[in-house]
Amino acid sequence: MKARVHVMLKNGVLDPQGEAVRHALGAMGFDKVTGVRQGKVIDLDLVEGATEADVAEMCEKLLANTVIERYEIELV
Amino acid sequence: MKARVHVMLKNGVLDPQGEAVRHALGAMGFDKVTGVRQGKVIDLDLVEGATEADVAEMCEKLLANTVIERYEIELV
Repeated sequence: MKARVHVMLKNGVLDPQGEAVRHALGAMGFDKVTGVRQGKVIDLDLVEGATEADVAEMCEKLLANTVIERYEIELV
Repeated sequence: MKARVHVMLKNGVLDPQGEAVRHALGAMGFDKVTGVRQGKVIDLDLVEGATEADVAEMCEKLLANTVIERYEIELV
């Protein structure tokens, strides 16, 4: 089985990476973009029987910095 | 409107970042993980009327290095 984890900066936390992308897109003439947030996506291959709770524990302990980041788990 | 873009290394391209995460998870006792691939997720806020083709052009020109990366676009 597989899990996909999205790790994004929480709303209100400054995202300089996303801001740089937004600026670069604007400079290249892409004027339909009003905002950009960039985060990480982590695709996990798991053994059968792993649960969403296992993945949540990995997020809490390693994958996300929960002070400034939030995560979403999708089992696929 | 919003678009979410996933940028992942193509299959077969070595992913040292994912490999480091896999190793760290293993060292922490998470033995249900057999593989990890890490990529980027970019959330775009777009003006009404922007199309998937616009986003694809952004991916080709800036967001992804199409030599080694593939991208997926999701309009939401």
